Amino acid sequence: MIIETNHACDLVIFGAKGDLTKRKLLPALYKLEKSKKIHKYTRIIASGRADWSTEDYIEKIKTEVKNFLNEEINDLIWKNLSSRIFFCNIDVHEPLHFFRLKTILKQKKNIIVYYCAVPSNTLNSIFIGLGNAHLNSVPSRIVLEKPLGVCLKTSKKINDQISKYFLESQIFRIDHYLGKESILNLFALRFSNTCLFYNWNNKTIDHIQITVSEEVGIEDRWNYFNMMGQMKDMVQNHLLQILTILTMDQPKNISSESIQHEKVKILRSLNPINIHNINKKTVRGQYCSGVINEKKVPSYLEENGANKNSLTETFVAIKVDLNNKQWSGVPFYLRTGKRLAHKYSEIVVFFKKKPTNLFKNLNSELLQNKLIIRLEPNPNIIFDFSVKAPGLEQEYKIENSQLKSSQFSKKYSKNSIDAYERLLFEIMRGVQSLFVCRDEIEAAWKWIDPIIHAWKNSKNNAPQLYMSGTWGPKNSDLLLAHDGRVWYEFH
Amino acid sequence: MIIETNHACDLVIFGAKGDLTKRKLLPALYKLEKSKKIHKYTRIIASGRADWSTEDYIEKIKTEVKNFLNEEINDLIWKNLSSRIFFCNIDVHEPLHFFRLKTILKQKKNIIVYYCAVPSNTLNSIFIGLGNAHLNSVPSRIVLEKPLGVCLKTSKKINDQISKYFLESQIFRIDHYLGKESILNLFALRFSNTCLFYNWNNKTIDHIQITVSEEVGIEDRWNYFNMMGQMKDMVQNHLLQILTILTMDQPKNISSESIQHEKVKILRSLNPINIHNINKKTVRGQYCSGVINEKKVPSYLEENGANKNSLTETFVAIKVDLNNKQWSGVPFYLRTGKRLAHKYSEIVVFFKKKPTNLFKNLNSELLQNKLIIRLEPNPNIIFDFSVKAPGLEQEYKIENSQLKSSQFSKKYSKNSIDAYERLLFEIMRGVQSLFVCRDEIEAAWKWIDPIIHAWKNSKNNAPQLYMSGTWGPKNSDLLLAHDGRVWYEFH
Repeated sequence: MIIETNHACDLVIFGAKGDLTKRKLLPALYKLEKSKKIHKYTRIIASGRADWSTEDYIEKIKTEVKNFLNEEINDLIWKNLSSRIFFCNIDVHEPLHFFRLKTILKQKKNIIVYYCAVPSNTLNSIFIGLGNAHLNSVPSRIVLEKPLGVCLKTSKKINDQISKYFLESQIFRIDHYLGKESILNLFALRFSNTCLFYNWNNKTIDHIQITVSEEVGIEDRWNYFNMMGQMKDMVQNHLLQILTILTMDQPKNISSESIQHEKVKILRSLNPINIHNINKKTVRGQYCSGVINEKKVPSYLEENGANKNSLTETFVAIKVDLNNKQWSGVPFYLRTGKRLAHKYSEIVVFFKKKPTNLFKNLNSELLQNKLIIRLEPNPNIIFDFSVKAPGLEQEYKIENSQLKSSQFSKKYSKNSIDAYERLLFEIMRGVQSLFVCRDEIEAAWKWIDPIIHAWKNSKNNAPQLYMSGTWGPKNSDLLLAHDGRVWYEFH
Repeated sequence: MIIETNHACDLVIFGAKGDLTKRKLLPALYKLEKSKKIHKYTRIIASGRADWSTEDYIEKIKTEVKNFLNEEINDLIWKNLSSRIFFCNIDVHEPLHFFRLKTILKQKKNIIVYYCAVPSNTLNSIFIGLGNAHLNSVPSRIVLEKPLGVCLKTSKKINDQISKYFLESQIFRIDHYLGKESILNLFALRFSNTCLFYNWNNKTIDHIQITVSEEVGIEDRWNYFNMMGQMKDMVQNHLLQILTILTMDQPKNISSESIQHEKVKILRSLNPINIHNINKKTVRGQYCSGVINEKKVPSYLEENGANKNSLTETFVAIKVDLNNKQWSGVPFYLRTGKRLAHKYSEIVVFFKKKPTNLFKNLNSELLQNKLIIRLEPNPNIIFDFSVKAPGLEQEYKIENSQLKSSQFSKKYSKNSIDAYERLLFEIMRGVQSLFVCRDEIEAAWKWIDPIIHAWKNSKNNAPQLYMSGTWGPKNSDLLLAHDGRVWYEFH
């Protein structure tokens, strides 16, 4: 059993006054404190541009943590957590300010972890500031949040900048999907079940669907979202990560090098989508007004701050093909969108029908086996299995029977931890396996860029409108119908 | 949808006053009548040695059917059923009596079906009587019940006798297990699920366990049972049929010829058990007194009519090996016994562990996938699947999650029909696929005989005693322990 991280850390949070810190990092740290997963001597150095004392900061954030923590704050746990906190007034654009930080860090010989919870245009100042103050040496670690650039070029730029001061082995790039329990479970499903392992290829699998649907709109982030769109905001990172974990070879071991090596191989094997096949392979949508959970919601172009001519997509469906021995011929249908009918994430693996039907003279159609992996909410695993319909009414009718776990969902809901809790824990332990390496990010952008380019340059460059509260534009259904398939319905 | 059998039949029951007719055949016919599965002009000619009128017979059996039917008799259905019945006084040892039957049969041009619900020493007289009266010609059908002999020699004798008068295509040999819904479902499981189909061999499967356990003792059938023993009474037919259906190749089609051809291939591929390996491969037991369902029950040797020196086995466990490409190296452990702790029948397929463990550095053991097929009671299909234990407590612990169908059991209990209902229906339709051919029976005896012989001739020829209400003798556990395995526990 893991009691706590092995070494004491100094966790420096840049952007300690920001949204991510309040919503995610501090609640996650509270929970880690509660489960005694933080080293006794670990400190939290909250850094931001404010003339606050540590007491001021703790006072202010207590209210925020209360808001975002899904449980009552326990006084003792809060006392332990807050006793680790030091506030440090830093303007990251002022290189000299980093020497204030140095003074605090020098008090202990802890392993330093920098968490950059700041906009990406601030990152380089932090790298330079740390480098100038000689605070960048091994074994210090640095954590980056998405978005890391908005295309291959800008992504490379950030990676080039950081690489001047930090080694790849010091850099922890977060895709918080990799910290989710139900995503971690994919490794167990794939690599510890004989029955799946030997069937996990183009001989047995017909196609795979991945859906990440949201009910929310853009949540007052017009400027950010309108620049990104659903493709860069969700597909480039989260959906491609899911696809990658689903399809990668079994790594040699669980080291980050082995895992990232296999993931990069997959990302580099994605068949290109460009101006020549863009209309066959992708669907874009943008939401109009509609009703979700009995509440009227506005269209994308009516959101706060909207530019009424925006062509940004809030929905994407893509048919992805892999060019490797294991997967060629198996299409992966990805879809993700905002203002859809229900919030859920799910993978559905459709196995091929058996080529020979023993029961064909009995007018009995064979069905497809399906493995339904619900990621959230209520994670579950459901196996759509064929059985005989009982009774004398039909000669020998094959019907579906859903095998599902009654315990899994309960257990996962009860013991599930927030992705940030897991990821902060891994960062403090120094285990890099659940983080994204430079090659992955750049391989993903390399595949995404031509799609965005093709969209901009295709004749019909407007996204198809869809009503809020539906499953996206019609063409999303047609994308599959063209191949004789349908999206697996939300259940 | 099948409404009824295509042709009207004259169903002649020899042994119409006997136990099987009252307990099974008439209740099954009642249910077929209820579900309108009997042809309008089908007649039932009940034949027995008694000077009864049809009215007498109907009167007498109504009470019996009431006892054995698990529902209230509906007057209209009973009226319809009984209007089909004619009683015919026949002593089967009197060849001339068969001409009485002929008179009745000549009234209609129905397809004649002879159901021999009589002890096996009476069979030959029936064959001769029917032959003499020229009642044996195609398309008539004849139905035989077990036991068909008590060894290869006596089984051959009966088959030789019947073959003088009937073609193999006219003969329907009953193993009522083949009429059970949950056994029929095995065909669907095996031949319509891609995921299982490609894993159904010695590359993926470690071993298979088949348990058919009974709570009852010998139920006042001392003479019969003591002659047979559990091996001949249960293994030679029911357990070998289950094994065969589990392991046979997919037949070309669902014709009886194709199915029986594949089944015979399996029976002929069973590795012999004889005096040289009998102790390694088999365990015999005989029950002593004990407690079942809080009721004291006597030992086998205290049953009514017991011969106190009997060495007859009431429990058998066998390790069966198949000598073919698909299954060599996969042991099948069969066990069946009387006076065991619970009545249930179940197949458990243990898949191999994955040879490489991605998680071994995390001290996480891989588990075996298991497919648990509960045949009765409460048929169900359960898939023991590996998932990640959620939470931060263990690094990456693999644990079992049972996927099961919530509907299957309910549906099968609700729509399930009695095996005899299915089999009588198939007989009246003339479909032979669910019946046992001569080659199967003889191949089974050919494998069973040397085991019985070896038991009689081994040094230690007494069965091991076991307490009623347990899972059989200790050696049954040791049989598996020797291979590093254990019986899957009753749940």
